[in-house]
Order: sequence, then C-alpha cells, then structure tokens
Amino acid sequence: MTALYETIADHITEQIRSGVYAPGDRLPSVRRIKSDHGVSASTAVEALRLLLDRNLAVNRPRSGYFVAKPRQSKPTRRVPQSRVDRSMQARDLRTPLSLRLNLGIGNPQRPTLGAAVQGPELMAVTAMNRLVSQAMRLNPVESHSYDAPPGSPDLRRALARRAPAAGMEVAPEEIVITSGAKEAVYLSIRAVTRPGDTVAIESPAYYALLEVLASLQLKVVEIPADPNRGIDLDSLAGVLDRHRIAAVALVSNFSNPTGSCMTDEDKATLTSLLARKRVPLVEDDVYGDLAFEGHRPKAIKAFDRDGWVLHCSSHSKTVSPGMRIGWCVPGRFLNQVEHLKLVVNQATATAPQLALASFLDSGRFERHLRRIRPLFARQVDDMIAAVERHLPSDTRHTSPAGGHVLWLQVPGLDSLALYEEAASRGIHIAPGPLFSAGRRYLDCLRLNCGFAFTDETDAQMAALGELITRQLDR
Amino acid sequence: MTALYETIADHITEQIRSGVYAPGDRLPSVRRIKSDHGVSASTAVEALRLLLDRNLAVNRPRSGYFVAKPRQSKPTRRVPQSRVDRSMQARDLRTPLSLRLNLGIGNPQRPTLGAAVQGPELMAVTAMNRLVSQAMRLNPVESHSYDAPPGSPDLRRALARRAPAAGMEVAPEEIVITSGAKEAVYLSIRAVTRPGDTVAIESPAYYALLEVLASLQLKVVEIPADPNRGIDLDSLAGVLDRHRIAAVALVSNFSNPTGSCMTDEDKATLTSLLARKRVPLVEDDVYGDLAFEGHRPKAIKAFDRDGWVLHCSSHSKTVSPGMRIGWCVPGRFLNQVEHLKLVVNQATATAPQLALASFLDSGRFERHLRRIRPLFARQVDDMIAAVERHLPSDTRHTSPAGGHVLWLQVPGLDSLALYEEAASRGIHIAPGPLFSAGRRYLDCLRLNCGFAFTDETDAQMAALGELITRQLDR
Repeated sequence: MTALYETIADHITEQIRSGVYAPGDRLPSVRRIKSDHGVSASTAVEALRLLLDRNLAVNRPRSGYFVAKPRQSKPTRRVPQSRVDRSMQARDLRTPLSLRLNLGIGNPQRPTLGAAVQGPELMAVTAMNRLVSQAMRLNPVESHSYDAPPGSPDLRRALARRAPAAGMEVAPEEIVITSGAKEAVYLSIRAVTRPGDTVAIESPAYYALLEVLASLQLKVVEIPADPNRGIDLDSLAGVLDRHRIAAVALVSNFSNPTGSCMTDEDKATLTSLLARKRVPLVEDDVYGDLAFEGHRPKAIKAFDRDGWVLHCSSHSKTVSPGMRIGWCVPGRFLNQVEHLKLVVNQATATAPQLALASFLDSGRFERHLRRIRPLFARQVDDMIAAVERHLPSDTRHTSPAGGHVLWLQVPGLDSLALYEEAASRGIHIAPGPLFSAGRRYLDCLRLNCGFAFTDETDAQMAALGELITRQLDR
Repeated sequence: MTALYETIADHITEQIRSGVYAPGDRLPSVRRIKSDHGVSASTAVEALRLLLDRNLAVNRPRSGYFVAKPRQSKPTRRVPQSRVDRSMQARDLRTPLSLRLNLGIGNPQRPTLGAAVQGPELMAVTAMNRLVSQAMRLNPVESHSYDAPPGSPDLRRALARRAPAAGMEVAPEEIVITSGAKEAVYLSIRAVTRPGDTVAIESPAYYALLEVLASLQLKVVEIPADPNRGIDLDSLAGVLDRHRIAAVALVSNFSNPTGSCMTDEDKATLTSLLARKRVPLVEDDVYGDLAFEGHRPKAIKAFDRDGWVLHCSSHSKTVSPGMRIGWCVPGRFLNQVEHLKLVVNQATATAPQLALASFLDSGRFERHLRRIRPLFARQVDDMIAAVERHLPSDTRHTSPAGGHVLWLQVPGLDSLALYEEAASRGIHIAPGPLFSAGRRYLDCLRLNCGFAFTDETDAQMAALGELITRQLDR
C-alpha cells in the first residue's frame, strides 16, 4: 500500500511533469499541504522530502521548496568540437591498448586525473559491506551456489521497479544481469555483430567501446557528435543510407569523454530511424543517474517501441565498481545476450546481486544519489576553475551537466607527448587519440573529476599547466 | 619461518615421494618421531596431521599412520567407450544449447542428477561468509574500487603458493583472475583462435566447452578418449599431422563426463607433442583437487616448459561456485588473456578474491578438501550402487577416482527421449549427445553425484530405471 506522503508526492510530481509547476516555481508550503490534504505537518514534510529525493525539488533555507531546474550544459563556443572528415569511411581499428597503461587505476587509494574512477566517499561502501554480509547470512545456499542467466530474480525485480526513473517500462524477465556495464556492452555487441561487420559510433567515443570493437574484429564509422547534444543524427542517417551498418553504439547521457546528453527529441528520432532501418543500438547509460540537478535524463530505451535498443547500465559509477554488477535490457536480442552470458562466464557473483537489490528496494539508493550528485557537480566545477587557472587561456573545455569527466582542447597540444611527460611525474591523464578509432583529437585530453578537489589536485593541475606551456613553447 | 612440525612433515613427504615409504607402508609412529627428532608428542602429532591434510597419509584407528594409496579408476570392460568415426573430420558444431534447459540448476536447494553442481554442505559456506565480510571490513576501499587485470595480488600470491600441489611452479605475475574457470576457458580459447579455426577436443567432451567453440564460430575435431586415461595421443598426433589445428582443449583430471584422468606419462608426452607442433592447449583442471584418495594428480601445466599450455581452474567445485572466482595461467599467451579480460568485463568482483586468498593462505582450504573428498567418493560409490540396483543389468558405467560425475551407457537407450520423459517427472539428467559436437552417445547419459545420496535420490534412480526399462521394451 502506498503511504499517504507518497500519494501526495506523486500528486505534486504529476503537477510538475504536466507544467502546473514550472522549473523555479515555488511549491506548496508545509502549511498549504496540511490544509489541502488534511494531513499532519510531518506527513507534509515527508512528501516534500520525497520530491527532493526524486531530484524534482530543491530546498532553499528559510524560503521553502522550489521546482528544480535541470542544469543545462552551458552552451559556449569554447567547447572542443567533434572532428571527423566528411567521408566517414569504415575503417579498421588500431586498438588503443598501449595508451591504457598509465591511466592510474592501479591504486584505488590515490586520486587520478586519468581513469574515469571515483573516490570511495562517493560509493556506498558502508551500506554495501553490511548488505553483502547480510545477504550471505540470510541466503547462504543461494549466495554460494551456481547462478544462471538471466541472474538474480530479486535484483531484476528491483531494477524493473526503478526503471521508470529513466523513463523505461521494463519487466524483470527482460533484464540480464552482467559483471558490470562493460560486460553488458561486450555481450550486446557480440549479440548483434559478426567479425568484419561495421559499427557506427559517436566521435569522440569511450575508449573501452573501441577496444571491444577491435577485439571482435569489427570496423567502425565515426559519426560527428556535438559536445552538448551528442551524436549528429543527420550524419548518422546519411551513413546508414550509404553503408551496411550492423549496429550503432554510444553513451546516451553524459557521454564519456564529452559529457554530451542527447535530447529527448533526438532520442525519439534515433529510435524511429533505427527501427525503420532495422539496425540495433547498443546504449551505454552508466552516467544517467549522475545528473547534477533536476531529474534523471531518460534512457534511449524509453523511446524504443520495437526492441532494437540494447540498454546497458550498472551501479559502478554510483554505488560500487568493485562489486562488478551491471545489466542489459536487450530487447529483441534477449535470448542471444542470455546465451552469451552463459557461454562467457555462466553468471555474476550472487551475494553482490542480492545486496544491491536490498539497497535499491529500501530507497537508500535514491538518498545516496541525492548525497553524491552535488559532490560530483562541485568536483567538476572545481576542475573547470583549475583548468581556467592553470591551463593556457585559449584552452577549450566542456561544461557537462552530469557525470565526472571533462574534455579539453588545447590548440597546438600533443596530448600523447603530454601523457608520457605527465606520467613520468606521477600525473595521469587520458590523451585525446584514445577516444578515436582514427587517432584523432591529438590536441585534446580528458580529465577525471571523480575525486574531491584537493590541494594535491591543484598542484597536479598546476604541474600539467607548466608541462603544456613548456611543450607549446618548444 | 617454517614451524618444527612442518619441517618434520616435509622430511617425511620427501621420503614418500622418493619411495622410502611406498603406498600402504606404515609411517613412523608418534613415539618414533619424538625420539628421532627430539620433539614433543604434540609436535609429532601435528606433523602426521599435516601429512593427512596433504592427502599423503591415512590414519587407521589403533594401528597408526600409513602412506595413502592413490585410488585407481577401476579398470573394467564394462565402461562406456569413446565413439568417433575413424575419419575424425573437422565439423561445424550444432550448439547443444536447447538441451541445457532442463538440467535442474534452477533451484540450489534441490539436488539434481542433471547439472554438475554440488550440495552446499560440500562448499565452504560459513567460512566464506565470514571471510568475505572480513575482507570488506579490512579493505573497504579496495573491495569497492575498480580492480584491473590480472586481478588481486593477494589471491595471485596465494594461488602461486598452492600451485606445487598440482606439480606447477607458477609466479603470481603469470596468473590472471577470472570469473570462474568457464571464463578462463572462454578467454583462453579466444586468445588462441580466430573464427573459422579448428580445435581438437576429447570425445566425449564437456558441453560448456562445445558451447564456447560454437559461439566463437570454431570447428572441432573429436579425438577418441579413454574413460580411464583420457585423450588418445596417437589419434591426436595423427590429426595434428593431417589438419591445421589452432588449439587442443580438454579436461585433464577427472574429466567431465567420463572421469578420465590422464597419466603423468601422457601429460608429458602431450606437452612435448604440442610444443613441437606449436599448438596451444587449453587445460581445464577444475576437478583435480577432488581426487578421492592419495595426492592430487598433476596438472598438464606441470610438464609445460615452453608456455603452450593455458591452465584454467577455479574453486567452484570445492569452495563456492556462487563467488565466481577462477583463474588462468596462460603461459606465452599471458598478454592476450589479460587484455581480453579487460575487454570483456574489466575485472572480477574484489571482495570474493580477497576472501579466497585468506582461505587458501590459512591452510583451511586443505582441511576443507580433506573433509569433502571422502564425501564425494562416498556419493559416487552410492550412485554406482544405485545404478547397479535400478538400471538394466547390461548398463555400463565409469568408476572415477575423483570428481562427482558418472557416465553411463545403456545399450539401446534413446537418452534424448529419456531426458524429456524424466524432466516431465522432475528428474533431470544430462543426455549423451550434449557431450559431442556430432551428437554421438545417444545411448549414454551423465549422472551428477554432487549431493548426498538420500532416499529421494534412490527413488529418482528407481524411477529412472523404470523409465529406461519401459523405453527399451517399446
């Protein structure tokens, strides 16, 4: 049964969604809710708190509750642009593996500007420790026996219940649990391609995707992507007309490295286009929950009526990467993905699945998100300030509205050389060519903002600024 | 520093290995050890207990300690034989997936004769629950952060320390942690083949291997295998002369389904042959630790001087399948396997790795093995008795010396029909054709002996006997 405060919160949520209350509007006060709904003050406060948890409201001390404004990526011309030559030819990948050796993922205690990882204070360490122990204690046999695809029913139910947060309606039976979103993407790509096929990707693209494609002997076509709106749909449509494309693969929300977030309009257009062309889309949506303000952007899957979208996600960016839990909603490719999961490693560890299910079901996940989102926002802001403080004045940077990476362009920079020079001083960055099959973006780099900005971070940024200046002066 | 009792046990171990004490010989008494080594009675007892833990000695109450006799597979002509036509042609696989739906893995609380899984009382549930909780408490940051290939240094060190039990000398740097042995085999096969290649396998072969090969678009040649000694090396040598073989893949010790265990001589011959031909071998050795008596058989890897063996194993059969920890010692293919692990899912969950490392290092794993080995032996014996009690008198069966599966041949049987009929009564078996690329072994089936033999098991076997008799009478 729904609690009274939830009913009230649902009512106000509906009013926000339908525009009764617009972004920035003042919401009904506690007193007003008391009288309108005939409830106690504490029930009214609970209802408003739930709206905070849903990221629909903000609380301004001594003025009341207001409808949250979605934080927009700041439109600016000072943003690195996608660079793909007009031809957009399919090409073999040169795997960027060698570039991954120095991203600084080795020591989890130590912040890194290289790998896109986050500090432990942004994970749910204490809660997960307790919940894993509890899961094993309460379900000793299940925790240690063989699981089989599609994975724990408890976790699939919990994920299905939370799917509406990303605009999706998903049944537990449509979900396959994987060992991280990375495995979900790997299995999805394998499910819809054969060696030699061509996959269309955004440019720049997440390097781990490039590695999957190279490892499976696939060719790629890089499609220009806007640092704010993501993949250019006109270019994509043109490529789909000209090439035999086996699949499209991209990060839908707060993409890595640019932080771009596709609009709902683009998401709808894209799903129609792909359904018409009968081309599957592998959607990586690991950053969607890390919207800095306002509610979570919808998944592309939310617009998918024909099952061509394979939606991949995880809680590695929000709860715990070390537990290795991800999932896939493969649409019409459900059987293939389930079978591949069986073939590759049978199942994902059981106890972490059960623990995550409890975390989601108890509502603690939403509270946790509410705590960490502003921290990520702050870290990104601090990093932007450091870029403006220490890097050459003509440096361009993104201003993402979620996630925790920044993408920079420094005219004239050789980021591969910088990467080596910085690594030798114990500073790790991700150089631009890592994000392109054709090794474009030599004058770009990605900075991780997954850790609290400290004096040490500032010293690293200052050192980076010096290295860049010295390089450009040569 | 080595404790005194360990030094004494090492001394006697050396004497057993060099033949000073032969299998069945009486070992020095506590009194004798006291006087020989000038130690206390309790130290002498500790030393003898350690020999028990090492499976080198048995204790006969009131007579003393004796050198353990390795339990031999009982040679008998009443054993199902490998059936491969002389031509041994490479062929495309028909994937046996559809046959896997009814192996009864769905409910871990319920014993099954179908899937090769074990009862929770044979796992180390309580110890692992405690050790996982402890690992997370003591290493909160490490437990929840991203791990990267090759995996936890603690676990790789613990595995390296225990490698001599299988005759191997392995450094931690040579080991890659995977999500179960299944993933180790998948990554190994991917590392050494390309789509369209041909792989030589034993016949019958473990069905999950066949699925991996089919999924990677590989062809297979089935090589005859003896139910006692395993793969026929003359046949294999002939095939290597005639075909371009990309890799050989087999289960070295207590193979699934026949329970065959290769001799040390064959293992040495095989590694020389493959090194000469420069053909990699994917060795699956998940059952080696489940030798019923005597010490653990050596891994093929123990004989590998040139790095052509990719050794795959796990503790899923001995400690906990649900934790999904396995590993690979890929020899000269180390970089490829490490890279593929990164591509497929980045890493295996961290806390279970740390917990397993503690379990191995504390010596509890050896004590646990000492406890479960006779239980598995008993379960296999009980099942053989039930086969002889309930199944037609001309039924042939294996008598494995380790592991927990039996392989039967019932002349005239259609095991696919039996599989359906039995499943409709809630009884699960693994039909013979599941274990062959060419769907051979229609009159064979595999029985799982992973659970304590109960009245319910006996009733299932009686029902199976009836179904078989009815089928043969038709």
